[in-house]
Amino acid sequence: MGSERQFVADLVAGLPSDRRLEVPAGDDAAVLRPPAGRRTVVTVDMLMEGVDFLLGPECAPREVGHKALAVSLSDLAAMGSRPEAAVVAVALPRNGGEALGSALQVGIAALAAEHGMALAGGDTNSWDGPLVVSVTAIGSVPPGGAWRRDGALVGDLLVATGRFGGSILGRHLAVTPRCREAAAIAGAFEVHAAIDISDGLSLDLSRMMAASGTAAIIDLDAVPIHPDAERLAKQDGHSAIDHALGDGEDFELVLALSPAEAQRLVAALAADPALAPLTIIGEVVAGDGLLGRSGGGLATPLGARGYEHGFLS
Amino acid sequence: MGSERQFVADLVAGLPSDRRLEVPAGDDAAVLRPPAGRRTVVTVDMLMEGVDFLLGPECAPREVGHKALAVSLSDLAAMGSRPEAAVVAVALPRNGGEALGSALQVGIAALAAEHGMALAGGDTNSWDGPLVVSVTAIGSVPPGGAWRRDGALVGDLLVATGRFGGSILGRHLAVTPRCREAAAIAGAFEVHAAIDISDGLSLDLSRMMAASGTAAIIDLDAVPIHPDAERLAKQDGHSAIDHALGDGEDFELVLALSPAEAQRLVAALAADPALAPLTIIGEVVAGDGLLGRSGGGLATPLGARGYEHGFLS
Repeated sequence: MGSERQFVADLVAGLPSDRRLEVPAGDDAAVLRPPAGRRTVVTVDMLMEGVDFLLGPECAPREVGHKALAVSLSDLAAMGSRPEAAVVAVALPRNGGEALGSALQVGIAALAAEHGMALAGGDTNSWDGPLVVSVTAIGSVPPGGAWRRDGALVGDLLVATGRFGGSILGRHLAVTPRCREAAAIAGAFEVHAAIDISDGLSLDLSRMMAASGTAAIIDLDAVPIHPDAERLAKQDGHSAIDHALGDGEDFELVLALSPAEAQRLVAALAADPALAPLTIIGEVVAGDGLLGRSGGGLATPLGARGYEHGFLS
Repeated sequence: MGSERQFVADLVAGLPSDRRLEVPAGDDAAVLRPPAGRRTVVTVDMLMEGVDFLLGPECAPREVGHKALAVSLSDLAAMGSRPEAAVVAVALPRNGGEALGSALQVGIAALAAEHGMALAGGDTNSWDGPLVVSVTAIGSVPPGGAWRRDGALVGDLLVATGRFGGSILGRHLAVTPRCREAAAIAGAFEVHAAIDISDGLSLDLSRMMAASGTAAIIDLDAVPIHPDAERLAKQDGHSAIDHALGDGEDFELVLALSPAEAQRLVAALAADPALAPLTIIGEVVAGDGLLGRSGGGLATPLGARGYEHGFLS
């Protein structure tokens, strides 16, 4: 139904040969070999032109392809899951759709190759509407090994990857999903809860706290602020910490672990320069909502700021 | 990223409880337990308003939801695969999107329940564009058990489920994917090749023959013609067999098996009134392309007719 065999064949041809096993040539579906003894994790994200990106000089189709897979990979990373395969469905504008589809595919295939994933099928369509890309990413975890957002415990410390804020200056497209960090942590450290920061540090963290039935105190002096947030703050008069807390599209991970485990984790990963830096940004406390603390002062309520999307959220 | 947790929760809540295992509450991704010793089959289809359907009195959102899952289930059936789970991504028009999303969901969940599938996650978005639905269906097959379209052998007979033509009179929406038939056949009969008829019997069959490096002679007197094709023929002056060969969206299966196996299959499934009737509609011969034969005459070339979509097909 609506499948573009050429597109699929090109995607498959770009793979390392050991990830191409049992992908039947020219079929609408693909067969994957689930890793023995592991569970399958599946996540889907849809990006729409005009909503999630604006094609133009600052956003090429290749970057859209990259981002479309990257956001799904970020979801997998937030579950401590190893990427295995992805399938892609696209609606291409009739005018210029072929070149657009090819460029998208290059962006998707490059990121898939970087993570050793199979591209396992696809559905390409054309229409008079704007570009729509839907990526379904499939990962694997050991039984019971998937991180959840609802397991944070009072007393846990909150550990964040990377730095926050100002992603609109370019990182919102050149998303680096934290799959390598997740792979280094999963199984080696006891993670109580995890989330990826797509809609803003304070908003996503407040979701993790709500799911866990807990509150968090963020150490505002410790939140790692991205240089982009500093640059943006100089331009618009908001503070850099406000950008770090509210901007969204950082696609960093925030994990809740016991204090001893959090300290052990931060020390262990600091030794590997290939991984994003880890920072303890706060702690889990009883109650609900988010509090902020700065300069050794009292913790005061912090409104959740970030991007609320959709009609139900 | 753009995930609608309420939508996901509602989808999950509609499941039989034994299919809800390990779906973490409120996460962007879901965890599935792959059936032991089976391979995972993945397929994706995207339906766009104005291209694949026109919302209106004759096409309610619930029917679009049904069809969006049904076409992916048809892909799974064409691989002899058992449905296991589906994930759904939608772009809803901003105006009225909430009601539309709920109705879609009802259509998807009802069909999923009918096939005992888990609905394992989702991504709901709203925008100023038309409705777009992307369904990724996940199935399972025994190792080496997936049917392919490229395995037909000279001398095989071609066996079709159901009847063909005139789907535009309603069956193009009320699609019945042939999952039960596939389940009854897979493992019990040696199927050399299989395809589902989405773009027209002659076009999809010619694709199976091209992939197999063979030709087919269709017994035009044997092709089961749907009453809708007869009705349409009376309206538009084309013949009923032309509709049966060219209309598309039948979502029936055509299988290639050895003559003995084909006869055994047809006899065996005839006993079960819950399954679609099976008919031997032709045979696989050396060469390429499609031939038609009628009234005991010579076989003559038959142009592949059907719906060619996309810019590359």
